[in-house]
Amino acid sequence: MSSAKPVVLTGDRTTGPLHLGHYVGSLRARVALQHTTQQFLLLADTQAMTDNVGRHRKVTDNVIEVALDYLAAGIDPGLSTIFIQSQVPELAELTQYLLNLVTVSRLERNPTIKDEIRLRGFERDIPAGFLTYPVSQAGDITAFKATLVPVGDDQLPMIEQTNELVRKFNSAVERQVLVECEAVLSPVTRLPGIDGKAKMSKSLNNAIPLGASADEIKKAVNRMYTDPQHLRVDDPGQVEGNVVFAFLDAFDTEPATLEELKAHYRRGGLADSVLKRRLNDHLQALLEPIRQRRQQFSMDRGEVLNILRQGTERARQVSGQTMSEVKAALGLNYFG
Amino acid sequence: MSSAKPVVLTGDRTTGPLHLGHYVGSLRARVALQHTTQQFLLLADTQAMTDNVGRHRKVTDNVIEVALDYLAAGIDPGLSTIFIQSQVPELAELTQYLLNLVTVSRLERNPTIKDEIRLRGFERDIPAGFLTYPVSQAGDITAFKATLVPVGDDQLPMIEQTNELVRKFNSAVERQVLVECEAVLSPVTRLPGIDGKAKMSKSLNNAIPLGASADEIKKAVNRMYTDPQHLRVDDPGQVEGNVVFAFLDAFDTEPATLEELKAHYRRGGLADSVLKRRLNDHLQALLEPIRQRRQQFSMDRGEVLNILRQGTERARQVSGQTMSEVKAALGLNYFG
Repeated sequence: MSSAKPVVLTGDRTTGPLHLGHYVGSLRARVALQHTTQQFLLLADTQAMTDNVGRHRKVTDNVIEVALDYLAAGIDPGLSTIFIQSQVPELAELTQYLLNLVTVSRLERNPTIKDEIRLRGFERDIPAGFLTYPVSQAGDITAFKATLVPVGDDQLPMIEQTNELVRKFNSAVERQVLVECEAVLSPVTRLPGIDGKAKMSKSLNNAIPLGASADEIKKAVNRMYTDPQHLRVDDPGQVEGNVVFAFLDAFDTEPATLEELKAHYRRGGLADSVLKRRLNDHLQALLEPIRQRRQQFSMDRGEVLNILRQGTERARQVSGQTMSEVKAALGLNYFG
Repeated sequence: MSSAKPVVLTGDRTTGPLHLGHYVGSLRARVALQHTTQQFLLLADTQAMTDNVGRHRKVTDNVIEVALDYLAAGIDPGLSTIFIQSQVPELAELTQYLLNLVTVSRLERNPTIKDEIRLRGFERDIPAGFLTYPVSQAGDITAFKATLVPVGDDQLPMIEQTNELVRKFNSAVERQVLVECEAVLSPVTRLPGIDGKAKMSKSLNNAIPLGASADEIKKAVNRMYTDPQHLRVDDPGQVEGNVVFAFLDAFDTEPATLEELKAHYRRGGLADSVLKRRLNDHLQALLEPIRQRRQQFSMDRGEVLNILRQGTERARQVSGQTMSEVKAALGLNYFG
């Protein structure tokens, strides 16, 4: 990997296997990015622990599941570095110093944190580790001197917070040690759940996992919401808010045909079942090789652990180099 | 060192050389404790950074100064483990997990933190690293499974917070991994400054450093406040609030004689100069060997660094063992 390539840091909380929403929102882009960038893929078990106290087994059991999803989706460990956050103590070290550079009230004003606090019902009882996790994310990003960070638009405040910390750190040590990063916004809008809810999520039971069987895919497509007013085939149907069309927008490989289908649906005469069959065909074609690779890797967990061990070693090397520079800048290099 | 001995964790923020207040408040007791306990002495540079952003050089330059004070005062590196906080990443790691077990509002209620926030004028602009430093202290204590922690009574809330975190952690992992600790209250009350202010402190310019020269000691004793009403030798004098008597209480080796002197002073006829000469003699006798040892070590900084390197290695071994247990309990031992 050439150091002239941009450095990408991205990853996932390890709270469950990945699904089609992850594929469209990030994984597909990562498979492409690994050819043009130096990409670090973080299995964020430590971060997942911040709001999963007592459910740590769920977090650690899913580390290998997410790794399997990465490999199955086409992440090549020869091109991307897949590593486990908790096994890189340098990240905790760097975070510790960044924590001195941000005030509690600044963290409380972070819109993403505000939303998540509401979502999780924490109110005044926010775990300190949860309030400070944007600092931990900044630690992850800056430890690798990442220049590009793929995010959803709801995560832009995290990037802003990270760059604030970079400027504060460099100014405090009067040296350019840490590097500012840029958000790469996902080009595709978020995939809805098969029930039409805004977000696909395992916990909402409206997701199609990447490892889904042919039968599970078919059943999920059949369960999908279309237009509730489209009762007879001849009725005009609505394309907007129609889950099947949202999926076809994300997965159909023939955009011109898709536009024709939309027009036909709008004027009436096109059955939901025809669309669902088309979507099912596309999803089966996409997911079959993913499922097969996942099964292959799944049968050789030792090899997956090996990939993670090597990735983690490389992550420690790179972040260790940054920590050496951070410590030297702070005068913490007592032993030379 | 036998593991049957109680484990002591104590230390100092490295913001300046130590003074007589430290000697009376903690250092003297540590020199005794090292014979009956397994004592870890923390040079708390990371903690000192939490409210010294941009003044990191002051913090790191004083690491060796405090180490010199330890060695000069009689800390034996063969009996006690002296180590540098920033060089033990295990402490940052453990702290990271403990942060998930305490709420922001609980930290804000900590009376010590409340006082210090007022003292430093932070108000709403508290650095996150400062608010969370009691968790970092809990990390330091529990990483060594310390059972005894020498503290002033103003620090009892820290011990309470630590034991709360120990119970929460052990309960979350359903295993006894971390160990509760007990406060050892310093038997001697706090030494006042030579100007009579409640606290001896370098920044208040009312301290006698452990490395003070014979002349500096004499001048400091002469500057000491006595009883402002004791204008003529024959006048009755006040013992309470009299700085010279506060010092004699801490350093006079003949308690019976000291009681006679107090009685004499109260009824009148005892000159301040007599008391000051007596105190000067005691301080010179105490500090001369300390100063000499300090100068000797100071001439061989390579040896001091060696002692710190060895101590830090041992600290990493012990805290690394605890971190292995912590990670195993959380299921974070992916690589066996």
